[in-house]
Amino acid sequence: MLKYGDIVLVYIDDKRKYLIKLKEGGILGTDKGFIKHSEIIDHSYGDVVYTSRGYMAYILKPLLIDYLVGFRRVTQVIYPKDSAFMIYLSGIKPGSKVLEAGVGTGFLTASLAYFVGENGKVYGFDVLEERIKNVYRNLESAGLADRVVLRVGDVREPVDVSSVDAVFYDLPDPWNAVDTAYAVLKNTSPLLIYVPTVNQVEKTVLSLRKHGGFIDIHTYEILLREYVVEEGATRPKTLMIGHTGYIIFARKVKKIMLS
Amino acid sequence: MLKYGDIVLVYIDDKRKYLIKLKEGGILGTDKGFIKHSEIIDHSYGDVVYTSRGYMAYILKPLLIDYLVGFRRVTQVIYPKDSAFMIYLSGIKPGSKVLEAGVGTGFLTASLAYFVGENGKVYGFDVLEERIKNVYRNLESAGLADRVVLRVGDVREPVDVSSVDAVFYDLPDPWNAVDTAYAVLKNTSPLLIYVPTVNQVEKTVLSLRKHGGFIDIHTYEILLREYVVEEGATRPKTLMIGHTGYIIFARKVKKIMLS
Amino acid sequence: MLKYGDIVLVYIDDKRKYLIKLKEGGILGTDKGFIKHSEIIDHSYGDVVYTSRGYMAYILKPLLIDYLVGFRRVTQVIYPKDSAFMIYLSGIKPGSKVLEAGVGTGFLTASLAYFVGENGKVYGFDVLEERIKNVYRNLESAGLADRVVLRVGDVREPVDVSSVDAVFYDLPDPWNAVDTAYAVLKNTSPLLIYVPTVNQVEKTVLSLRKHGGFIDIHTYEILLREYVVEEGATRPKTLMIGHTGYIIFARKVKKIMLS
Amino acid sequence: MLKYGDIVLVYIDDKRKYLIKLKEGGILGTDKGFIKHSEIIDHSYGDVVYTSRGYMAYILKPLLIDYLVGFRRVTQVIYPKDSAFMIYLSGIKPGSKVLEAGVGTGFLTASLAYFVGENGKVYGFDVLEERIKNVYRNLESAGLADRVVLRVGDVREPVDVSSVDAVFYDLPDPWNAVDTAYAVLKNTSPLLIYVPTVNQVEKTVLSLRKHGGFIDIHTYEILLREYVVEEGATRPKTLMIGHTGYIIFARKVKKIMLS
Repeated sequence: MLKYGDIVLVYIDDKRKYLIKLKEGGILGTDKGFIKHSEIIDHSYGDVVYTSRGYMAYILKPLLIDYLVGFRRVTQVIYPKDSAFMIYLSGIKPGSKVLEAGVGTGFLTASLAYFVGENGKVYGFDVLEERIKNVYRNLESAGLADRVVLRVGDVREPVDVSSVDAVFYDLPDPWNAVDTAYAVLKNTSPLLIYVPTVNQVEKTVLSLRKHGGFIDIHTYEILLREYVVEEGATRPKTLMIGHTGYIIFARKVKKIMLS
Repeated sequence: MLKYGDIVLVYIDDKRKYLIKLKEGGILGTDKGFIKHSEIIDHSYGDVVYTSRGYMAYILKPLLIDYLVGFRRVTQVIYPKDSAFMIYLSGIKPGSKVLEAGVGTGFLTASLAYFVGENGKVYGFDVLEERIKNVYRNLESAGLADRVVLRVGDVREPVDVSSVDAVFYDLPDPWNAVDTAYAVLKNTSPLLIYVPTVNQVEKTVLSLRKHGGFIDIHTYEILLREYVVEEGATRPKTLMIGHTGYIIFARKVKKIMLS
Repeated sequence: MLKYGDIVLVYIDDKRKYLIKLKEGGILGTDKGFIKHSEIIDHSYGDVVYTSRGYMAYILKPLLIDYLVGFRRVTQVIYPKDSAFMIYLSGIKPGSKVLEAGVGTGFLTASLAYFVGENGKVYGFDVLEERIKNVYRNLESAGLADRVVLRVGDVREPVDVSSVDAVFYDLPDPWNAVDTAYAVLKNTSPLLIYVPTVNQVEKTVLSLRKHGGFIDIHTYEILLREYVVEEGATRPKTLMIGHTGYIIFARKVKKIMLS
Repeated sequence: MLKYGDIVLVYIDDKRKYLIKLKEGGILGTDKGFIKHSEIIDHSYGDVVYTSRGYMAYILKPLLIDYLVGFRRVTQVIYPKDSAFMIYLSGIKPGSKVLEAGVGTGFLTASLAYFVGENGKVYGFDVLEERIKNVYRNLESAGLADRVVLRVGDVREPVDVSSVDAVFYDLPDPWNAVDTAYAVLKNTSPLLIYVPTVNQVEKTVLSLRKHGGFIDIHTYEILLREYVVEEGATRPKTLMIGHTGYIIFARKVKKIMLS
């Protein structure tokens, strides 16, 4: 049974999904009519309620992707297609300890916190205090704030974190933060970097090679195509996101001294 | 300190990565020379050893992706780019309970087991006993076997599993297993289906619509492009995997009786 | 020197390109100010004029792609990326004789007329007279009307055209027009078909195989990605056309009787 | 009726296509058996002959794409998907005069010669005499040599060609040949440049902007996906060419002096 304080996804159709926290006297207004929160209380996830104009609305338990849509955005975000692949490659798991910089809006931060679970920990850095505050609120709304330690700080300087299972960077100049990544990573743990331009890819990869102590360096781009499925008329969607960013992967190893 | 019984990834270069279990008297043979397991013992992850022909080899702690490469393949597999997106969309997390069919070679099974953690559980079905046995061995090699319950069984018939947080299908005819998915899923939990052809996409999506009780149905395709990074000469790789399969997502809701 | 009656492309910037026919008293209105046609007269291609608000506007000689943008659209069109590849594969050249159905808005018709030149001929069919009339006007605006014979007609029935160097179809049901293509094509000449859905691809290709007398059957999809080039910040455009249609190629040969 | 000296495409299946010039005593050897040229003589295009092992072989009239496959390659080539789009954008047509550098193996040269027709002319430059000789032989095999003027020369220096309708560059350093393109192009005619790396894209586009006198500058990438069509099992091909090169388009205009 749902109660005030619970977070639900109200789903009318693909373009009308609303993530709301149920509260006394609350009203969800939509262009298909409104729904009083009090009409949702005492229902269960999966039930249907109706808008004031008679449209069906499903009450859903939010998934990770739904929480993200509800986040207040203050920067470009890392999309699910990219976060998913970065997390998979990184090998993080329940209990992992990771460092992330910069947290931006917190899409990746929330995803990391989600997959490392209650026993894991995400150390999230950003140079702007207002972003840190916004990420904290976003994480709270998703119930993930207690797994994350957020700090105003610059990973181009040394940080007081160590022995992490993975490092995630979404920085304008990741090549200036390679030393920090190398310092905080456990041996053979991976570094994942997200950058939007090809120039940043090249500069970052070259800096990793020059730094030494990183192997298995790969650069990827993920393209997501959605399909419109109709009987006898199935085809990809006409419009598509043609570009978000590139993903760089590398593993830390001990530096070899060549004498 | 590494000891016999440990699993390591021996990395010589991008084309020479070997997942091995260290054992007394063991020898890793490669076209760049051999390495005796006894030479690896007493090193740590991140250390370097040398092949008999003098090539450097890094001793790495395997990530999820490395374990998969080591799996014995008996079917087409679901690639990381697809597994990653399916898992992300599904909202599974540490402690989740999921059903998967058919397990095939076990790439997705291992990934699910990895992300649900020690407190989660994967119920894996396949119609062929030999595949179940192979998946079990593969999961054991990755230390993930105890999180998975494998059964020879056909999800086109009812199964004795219930209240799962997500269902994953990699079946030739998922449209025949919609009832089972609907029966075992918790309310509002998602169904993820992977199929290689467009015809299967259409048939599956139409069957979900006809069945009722599924909303937010979407079909995706993930394309992965790798880049060759050289100073002043950065470009995508010449050859690319042009197709693996399509991903269908849907959420279970209560069926509405229209009177 | 430009004179009244000439067609010019007025280029202010990427989003402000105007194809106009110069006429006495004519005025081109834009959100960056207006330009009197009389101010363009007596200039040459490549010259600059200024709008009433002082913006520079280049006077360009229109290319094929510019004429197409100026066409009045009454149907979905075949985009340059697809037309270009179809024409290239078809092997048409100056002097070629081709059949096209349905002409729709005339993008492909104009392109075919353009490349077969003054000594070539395009026989264009459409079932709707209003489309034929619109295509005629569009072709006239591009100075290509005299190379095209337009007819209201249905290629699902026999047509009085023969020995063409290539057939181009953009029909909802090309599988019903295979006999006509086979009848009008020269031996070993190609058939090019454009369809927007995967179902049409399958139905068309199967019908070609069943019909017999077609070999080297291939199906293609062309994706076009545009790049944003800035010093140190080069990347693909964020939005992209994710889908237009599929291209089917086949060559006519004599049917073999298997006894 | 075919006779000695004619060029035919012998088609056994998709992987066995042979472009041959019929000559007395000639024999085509394949892994499916051989065919004597004398058995092809007196047949017509579209007829079937049989190999010594009884396989059917179709005798086809070669298309442009077939001639290219028969070319002796001495460099990376520009693929049809890219040539097609470049030619379409360029607005060349029967009678056009174009400059191309470097001609390399001659794929684009042949395509240009094909579309400008008997009354057109292609001025082809390359710095290496051996390439020029090879291109000449390739063009001869396709019957296109008389439309092309080939010269050993370097377009980074002024050339004695003028008033061309389009310039095509496939050079390692097109930024060093911008002056030549500007000098030889008619006003408002386009420049098309093909480069394999992103760095070359950026350097070229920046050099065009800096040079001035070029507008409407765009950079494109064309991806080609082929489909496997089977009843009920249609899908893209597993392997795909993931990258060839980028296409840059620009139009020449008069340079504006800003005082």
